Amino acid sequence: MNAPVPTHVLPQFELRPAPEAMLSALKASFGARFTTAAAVREQHGRDESPYPTTPPEVVVFCESTEEVAAVVRLASEHSIPVIPYGTGSSLEGHLLAVQGGISVDVSGMTGIVRLNPEDLTVTVQAGVTREQLNREIRDTGLFFPIDPGANASLGGMAATRASGTNAVRYGTMRENVLGLTVVTASGEVIHTGTRARKSSAGYDLTRLFVGSEGTLGVITEVTLKLYPLPEAVSAAICHFADIAAAVNTTIQIIQLGVPIARCELLDVNAVRAVNAQSKLGLRESPMLLMEFHGSPASVREQAETVQSVATEMGGEDFEWASTPEERTRLWTARHKAYFAGMQTNPGCRSVTTDTCVPISRLAEIIDASVADADATGLPYYIVGHVGDGNFHLAYLVKDGDAGERALAEAMSERMVRRAIALEGTCTGEHGIGLHKMGFLVEEAGEGAVAMMRAVKRALDPKNIMNPGKIFAW
Amino acid sequence: MNAPVPTHVLPQFELRPAPEAMLSALKASFGARFTTAAAVREQHGRDESPYPTTPPEVVVFCESTEEVAAVVRLASEHSIPVIPYGTGSSLEGHLLAVQGGISVDVSGMTGIVRLNPEDLTVTVQAGVTREQLNREIRDTGLFFPIDPGANASLGGMAATRASGTNAVRYGTMRENVLGLTVVTASGEVIHTGTRARKSSAGYDLTRLFVGSEGTLGVITEVTLKLYPLPEAVSAAICHFADIAAAVNTTIQIIQLGVPIARCELLDVNAVRAVNAQSKLGLRESPMLLMEFHGSPASVREQAETVQSVATEMGGEDFEWASTPEERTRLWTARHKAYFAGMQTNPGCRSVTTDTCVPISRLAEIIDASVADADATGLPYYIVGHVGDGNFHLAYLVKDGDAGERALAEAMSERMVRRAIALEGTCTGEHGIGLHKMGFLVEEAGEGAVAMMRAVKRALDPKNIMNPGKIFAW
Repeated sequence: MNAPVPTHVLPQFELRPAPEAMLSALKASFGARFTTAAAVREQHGRDESPYPTTPPEVVVFCESTEEVAAVVRLASEHSIPVIPYGTGSSLEGHLLAVQGGISVDVSGMTGIVRLNPEDLTVTVQAGVTREQLNREIRDTGLFFPIDPGANASLGGMAATRASGTNAVRYGTMRENVLGLTVVTASGEVIHTGTRARKSSAGYDLTRLFVGSEGTLGVITEVTLKLYPLPEAVSAAICHFADIAAAVNTTIQIIQLGVPIARCELLDVNAVRAVNAQSKLGLRESPMLLMEFHGSPASVREQAETVQSVATEMGGEDFEWASTPEERTRLWTARHKAYFAGMQTNPGCRSVTTDTCVPISRLAEIIDASVADADATGLPYYIVGHVGDGNFHLAYLVKDGDAGERALAEAMSERMVRRAIALEGTCTGEHGIGLHKMGFLVEEAGEGAVAMMRAVKRALDPKNIMNPGKIFAW
Repeated sequence: MNAPVPTHVLPQFELRPAPEAMLSALKASFGARFTTAAAVREQHGRDESPYPTTPPEVVVFCESTEEVAAVVRLASEHSIPVIPYGTGSSLEGHLLAVQGGISVDVSGMTGIVRLNPEDLTVTVQAGVTREQLNREIRDTGLFFPIDPGANASLGGMAATRASGTNAVRYGTMRENVLGLTVVTASGEVIHTGTRARKSSAGYDLTRLFVGSEGTLGVITEVTLKLYPLPEAVSAAICHFADIAAAVNTTIQIIQLGVPIARCELLDVNAVRAVNAQSKLGLRESPMLLMEFHGSPASVREQAETVQSVATEMGGEDFEWASTPEERTRLWTARHKAYFAGMQTNPGCRSVTTDTCVPISRLAEIIDASVADADATGLPYYIVGHVGDGNFHLAYLVKDGDAGERALAEAMSERMVRRAIALEGTCTGEHGIGLHKMGFLVEEAGEGAVAMMRAVKRALDPKNIMNPGKIFAW
């Protein structure tokens, strides 16, 4: 399985049906929280990717680490797949039950296990979403910055090494997870990391599980770093004549070391889509949305630096927002872009890319990819965490139109090859899932993927943890 | 091997002598860069720990990744240990050749492979030291911030997940390594990571090798993040009546989110030692050394906040330094503390601790450890990267005095147990090596250590990579 897995050609895997005795045992333990109802199974057999729904054999709603461990022990005994499920917002086919098995839904594990504002740490159950977390800690004066757009579960965000806006300043899940509770493939419970900010104690199991996409174990608790709410926050939008000017502004901001908190690009198609949906009345040209965090003086200083860089690049129509209400209005544009983009072509699906390159190569890859997309005539829009060198080009394809789908996949493939040639990655934050298995081999090389496979075989010898994802067994 | 390995009782391992044919082959390839001379072997069989020197059978000086790979392939064929060697500045027995074998010295691999100032990245060979790197990139306006004190090699710093001063703001090697070139245990060359700032592409092999202490492969190249030199830098020292006041000042600075770049504690014994050695004329009381990076306005603001917190805690005699010369004078105190401390008791060795705890528990563990040390009457001093919750208490023991050594080891053991009870770690930055193998099990649990062992067995089935370190085979 070293070729890419386009979303219109789902590979065939052998199903691994669960024995009746095992299903009875699960049902006896979980009662109404065990289900084989088609609607629930279907909901758990898809994500936000355009792959066809591929339901698990059964869904079990777990409420504790011990329950997850009990399910995995049973699954291990019978060599049945286990697919951890949070909010279903992943994008690369992660949740498809390609070999059947048990979807372990942890969305009911919503407890804040331990809040330590004095240490700027919190431990949450895997089903807590980032919005719930920020609501529950509001009174502490702290916040958790990672924001992938979707209101994803923190377990899922750890499993896919998510990031999103804010990562340019605060890092990704890689930098912000201090420790984990994990149910291993044999159903044992282990803890990784500590609440100390740093450690040199042995192999970094925390970061082995962060980004492992459910293939090594089930994450049931996550210990996170928190940050003091900035004293001052200011947001701005700025319009540009073309994407290149917006991107070159970003490159210079990063090279200058401005500690910008968010730096998001919307191309003209994305701006048109959010205008149409939310009547924002934005000028229809490429734009940057930026946010600055710090003391009032530092925010002012950052904003001045950025405004002067942007102006030099031909940026116009700066609009500033310092109150929460004004900021919400500006950020509406970014947060609604995904669904607004989809709604410009009702009934379409999107094939979304996620390349990330060294910052100096960003203009180059965006230019080439835009030219490619324009040449095909497929509708598309671009949003991007450009401060990280990461952007998403979403091709909108008619649902069921294999020709359009193939066209989009071919462009996506060309873009990934461009990113790899520029020393970047096929995925900045969405993960490999099914979709990018072939790209991973191209990016990392056969030797590195063989090493990942060796780790997988050592920790999950029966291949029960989310089988068929990241690399071939 | 689940008990701690005190430095006065080196465990016995079986030697694995190299066959004559293999030594001849190495000698034929490396000529004068192959040696079995006793002096060279002895130099390569020790580190800065007080363990007895335990020399390798042979030392080979490698100059390229390909040479390292050739040595490892030969070693793998004959199941002979390979111990990577950089500058020899590790502290926990990492370099002791407890089963003999080949010391692979990469200190001659000092090439800057690729400097990309436009992306704030650099790729260096493993033997480049942090001082060399900062000298070579000076003209770019960028710098590499991680500073563990010693002028260590960047390969070694990656291997031990080093940090030191500056980590409170810039993170540790964990956060600052973007990618690696590694010679695996079978002698294959793989590359991990990319030059993009973030990625979700498969298992995080980069962070699996960062902190693996040479037990999974030989790091031969390291790609690092760089940072723009701050526009303004200001350093300050502040004196306190007792350690508690200094530590509580630190806790509050961190809780307020001040982006302080360095926050170092010296206890009165450390201050006395540097005064005696360098005639600095510092007031002999516990003190904090701090450094602030940013724009002139931001540095001023940080300094004002910190001064006001410190004053509230009874801090006195603030001394500021804004020119490089003044800063060098202040930082002399911190940089010389290790050797100055040793020189207060000529002929002594130091048993040094490295616990790191959640910031709010820092005063508690330092208080208890000071009381313990005072009660025994052994000389000691404390220096610490207290902004991270990390500090080093060095017990000075007469060389060869088993009683004093045992006393120091027992205190170290009590301190580690305190740190673990406070949800901290037995090692913030020095690593496990030989010394903390038992502590790792106490901290991480049998299950997590079993998982590390499974990874090791999968990636190094012949146990040739730095055997006997981190955990028992």
